[in-house]
Amino acid sequence: MRGLVAVDWGTSSLRIARMDAQGRVIEERSSAQGILIVPGGDFATVFIAACADWVRADGSFCLMSGMVGSRQGWLEAPYCACPAGFADVAGALAWLMPAPGGARVAIVPGLSCEHDGVPDVMRGEEVQVFGALQVLDLQDATLVLPGTHSKWVTVRGQQIHGFSTFMTGEFYSLLRQHSILSRTLPPEDGALDEAAFDRGVTQALAGGSLLSTAFSVRTLSLMDRMAAQALPSYLSGLVIGEELRASAPAGGMVVVMGAPALAVRYERALAHLGVPTRRVGSEATWRGLWAIAQTLERGTP
Amino acid sequence: MRGLVAVDWGTSSLRIARMDAQGRVIEERSSAQGILIVPGGDFATVFIAACADWVRADGSFCLMSGMVGSRQGWLEAPYCACPAGFADVAGALAWLMPAPGGARVAIVPGLSCEHDGVPDVMRGEEVQVFGALQVLDLQDATLVLPGTHSKWVTVRGQQIHGFSTFMTGEFYSLLRQHSILSRTLPPEDGALDEAAFDRGVTQALAGGSLLSTAFSVRTLSLMDRMAAQALPSYLSGLVIGEELRASAPAGGMVVVMGAPALAVRYERALAHLGVPTRRVGSEATWRGLWAIAQTLERGTP
Repeated sequence: MRGLVAVDWGTSSLRIARMDAQGRVIEERSSAQGILIVPGGDFATVFIAACADWVRADGSFCLMSGMVGSRQGWLEAPYCACPAGFADVAGALAWLMPAPGGARVAIVPGLSCEHDGVPDVMRGEEVQVFGALQVLDLQDATLVLPGTHSKWVTVRGQQIHGFSTFMTGEFYSLLRQHSILSRTLPPEDGALDEAAFDRGVTQALAGGSLLSTAFSVRTLSLMDRMAAQALPSYLSGLVIGEELRASAPAGGMVVVMGAPALAVRYERALAHLGVPTRRVGSEATWRGLWAIAQTLERGTP
Repeated sequence: MRGLVAVDWGTSSLRIARMDAQGRVIEERSSAQGILIVPGGDFATVFIAACADWVRADGSFCLMSGMVGSRQGWLEAPYCACPAGFADVAGALAWLMPAPGGARVAIVPGLSCEHDGVPDVMRGEEVQVFGALQVLDLQDATLVLPGTHSKWVTVRGQQIHGFSTFMTGEFYSLLRQHSILSRTLPPEDGALDEAAFDRGVTQALAGGSLLSTAFSVRTLSLMDRMAAQALPSYLSGLVIGEELRASAPAGGMVVVMGAPALAVRYERALAHLGVPTRRVGSEATWRGLWAIAQTLERGTP
């Protein structure tokens, strides 16, 4: 196949990689032009400005993932139901017709699954997971993608069997900015205080619910039992520990994905549970899109 | 003893009851003048305007509870450590010297306790609990005081042995107003949708953490599996169910206190666990203050 223009277009950012015929990233571009701030919903104009030169130069295929395929995005790509693998996703691409400038542009669908009658969804993370499986050469895995809405993903035989969403990053922000705890916390998070973070993790793992453990941010401060500068790290430990209490597997390795600053915290918290980890960074998205593009070229779906 | 002017002065409200020599409430007054909006911290002026006529007329003793005794209040009444009963609290009153207009005015201290090295505190709820013990004539009890910060209280031999705080009401407001879920929820909560509330309770009781179950508000809406009007009741069931999952006793009766609208929800949720309940309303505060005043008169502390 020719090269690939790989696009990760999320709620708050747009990232693009130009990949050569061997799947190597030649160049990357990124901006804060997430789908929520595309003027007038004119995705084509933003797309052309961002990478039409690459598409034209290489006659490349362009594959996009993320919220660009949601109802608020460029073109809705309906969710694939789990279990789903590369081939399922590659066979359910939403093609932009006509695409700007005559390019071949497709959007990767998100995934859906169901627990006890309640649906769960992801968009974009499925591509990162497929990429991580390539990078680490794994058939089976448990993966965590930390973030505003963390995802815990179970893979069996290179298929995503199911996943769960945790609003961990969002709860941290809500408590940090809008709750009574915000009065106690210093204006800036500052560097990670490892001892305070560890104490938060331990507290959450032993506790029954964040509804209760979160209040300790206030009382430890009120009773002068923890310095104000340490409280953001403690709260971070509480929310991440709460996520792990409800989701971490009893045994086996966990693949931790995403930005280093957050991945380090998850690795540290998982160590409390004696869970070994492996790390995969943001290159997973490009590897995942490349893998889907290859499946498509081979005509296997 | 003479009558009592009983004052419940919290963060966002001021309630006052005039009680006769038999402890009957003759008259009540209330305003939104909570301690956070007392102009210039001039509590004396607000107090005199609110009830000096009652104090002067009866030559009454005045007993106050709530956040008025906090560091941000009129006079700090240091916390009593649990276990603590009527007599402990009555012996640790903070006296206002001089009190406005020569009145005898005292503030009831709050309580503190500790779980696994983490402190917990209450102010005002201890008086409601003492009152409920009087109303129901109980020696031992488990009580819940629902609210912004719900309290679960364990009483043995009329002493408060320990308690736990759950930020349930505050989490509801945070998710309702500031989270991604606010985009899905209708502008007004509307009447309670019992089926949706029950579904939320069931979901939370079976779930591992609100971090995860809260996301179902979004997905049920996204997948058109629940009407928008039902979502606030569902979210209410999720947060109350989460509190019960972490706090409800395996057996025995629970005393549910506070305002009827919220008490009804807790009773309904506790019924899911087969836990019988008894209700005590806002009269508990006056009964509690009266009981402390009586202990004081008898000189037992």
